[in-house]
Amino acid sequence: MSEDRIKEILESLKSIKGVHGSAIIEKFGLIKGSALPGWVDPEAVAAMVTLVLKASQRATKELEQGQFFNAIIESAKGKILFSEVEGNVLTIIATTDAKLGIINLKLGAATEALKGLL
Amino acid sequence: MSEDRIKEILESLKSIKGVHGSAIIEKFGLIKGSALPGWVDPEAVAAMVTLVLKASQRATKELEQGQFFNAIIESAKGKILFSEVEGNVLTIIATTDAKLGIINLKLGAATEALKGLL
Repeated sequence: MSEDRIKEILESLKSIKGVHGSAIIEKFGLIKGSALPGWVDPEAVAAMVTLVLKASQRATKELEQGQFFNAIIESAKGKILFSEVEGNVLTIIATTDAKLGIINLKLGAATEALKGLL
Repeated sequence: MSEDRIKEILESLKSIKGVHGSAIIEKFGLIKGSALPGWVDPEAVAAMVTLVLKASQRATKELEQGQFFNAIIESAKGKILFSEVEGNVLTIIATTDAKLGIINLKLGAATEALKGLL
């Protein structure tokens, strides 16, 4: 089943050093899959995705930025990555010292694997 | 006057290859200074800042991410950088091929220069 396969792909991202977990959220906020630690509410992740997409849409409309590709929010205690996959947003929650280069590499593979499953 | 000095610092960021312009927005959306090209509405930039900060606050509240440091939104035709400076957000609008390393370097200097002026 594609749901199990999605979960498997998301779980595999946890093997990256510093990654707490990930979720895939449809652009209107529906949670399509998640592999998050117990202290993270998937609904909170979905709410963040819709806010980031709103900011991006505003940018597209007013600043002619075109289609959303990805975003990163860095805070004192962690970073959150948002990446577009066929109209959905793959969200990764990581520690401040997680290496973006490694995450982006694995993210590319995960994105490819997710295509057609969503 | 500090307003002129702020404008000067923001104008200096335009010398970076790929940077269209910048603005400094107070966290509730007040525009404290801007050096933007004519096709960019400062109010639209302010609206984006409030949305990004909302997403970040959500992250802080629910995922214990702590204080907002910075964010990047990458789209098909450009990228927008948001960076915290003493309760304000310095926003830079750039092309897709603008080098983040160089921008971050100049951003550090601009941030230092802005401190105490805001």
